[in-house]
Amino acid sequence: MNYPNGLKKTTKGTINYGNRGMSLEDDINITNEYYRDNDIAIIYKKPTPITINHVDFPNRMDAVITEAHFKIPSTTDYNGIYRGKYIDFEAKETTSKTSFPLANIHRHQIEHLKKIAEHGGIGFIIVKFTKLNRIFLLMIKDLLTFINLNNRKSIPLEYFIKYGKEIKITLRPRIDYLKYVEWKEND
Amino acid sequence: MNYPNGLKKTTKGTINYGNRGMSLEDDINITNEYYRDNDIAIIYKKPTPITINHVDFPNRMDAVITEAHFKIPSTTDYNGIYRGKYIDFEAKETTSKTSFPLANIHRHQIEHLKKIAEHGGIGFIIVKFTKLNRIFLLMIKDLLTFINLNNRKSIPLEYFIKYGKEIKITLRPRIDYLKYVEWKEND
Repeated sequence: MNYPNGLKKTTKGTINYGNRGMSLEDDINITNEYYRDNDIAIIYKKPTPITINHVDFPNRMDAVITEAHFKIPSTTDYNGIYRGKYIDFEAKETTSKTSFPLANIHRHQIEHLKKIAEHGGIGFIIVKFTKLNRIFLLMIKDLLTFINLNNRKSIPLEYFIKYGKEIKITLRPRIDYLKYVEWKEND
Repeated sequence: MNYPNGLKKTTKGTINYGNRGMSLEDDINITNEYYRDNDIAIIYKKPTPITINHVDFPNRMDAVITEAHFKIPSTTDYNGIYRGKYIDFEAKETTSKTSFPLANIHRHQIEHLKKIAEHGGIGFIIVKFTKLNRIFLLMIKDLLTFINLNNRKSIPLEYFIKYGKEIKITLRPRIDYLKYVEWKEND
């Protein structure tokens, strides 16, 4: 297995190639803000789904949730509109240097993206290999092709290189992912 | 001011015309489920936005949020895709029999719907007058027209009757609102 620059797994702890700067989520949120501010697209991250069990009302204006639990999301994290098109995607990081574990995405999130594509929307995933500092966009059709043709529990980096689009990190916007969606749409 | 069937305001408490059966939110959620199950549209309610202040991890699998606060939503409650079109709306109930108070909708939610329309999406509000048991759909353009031409802090029922579409409550789906969006789209 090749590691970049001949870096060996055993150097873990001394040289850290991951978590340079911001998380993928931060980068995407900043990018979406840029898209909105410049009237390019209206895309938001959905709030984290929770089940609220108990709320205290010390006064009218200040309700405090004192017990709640995280729920498994039924959809993806991001959606919105771009050039009149419905956009829907999920973003995930992996610390693996060689493959993206499919367990990182819930089965019904993949089903959701499949439905979106069937209804004429644009669905995809964005995956960051944090230790390689490489980010890829993979359209739902290519994700489904992989799942249908393989019994593997993770998608190799090579598959992203071949069938996805590598997103270059730039200054503004940070992660101009819509550029790559456009490319795929005209594919 | 005319009340339906000559009902007077003073009968409040003895005759309850509101809250028969389910809330508007329940009705819309059931309708969206129907739309998804029948492959008509993929529309979901977004989770309630909260700020999480503290989480306990008694064990790996069961995180408990022990302190959180409600946030003012930056977007609307519902969005999704219908016939390839991006759909976005907010749903509100009012106990008033004569008008819908604009204070019920945040200013930036209206701005958000305006943006959606500018980007080629379909934006609207659904308002239920619970005591009249009447539900109306009002496209964002008609909402903006009212706001721009009036200094009033509430939209009279008459405006909904004239410029909105009244949604009839049916068995399945409960509130077939997309039928009225379609009508407005071809308008």
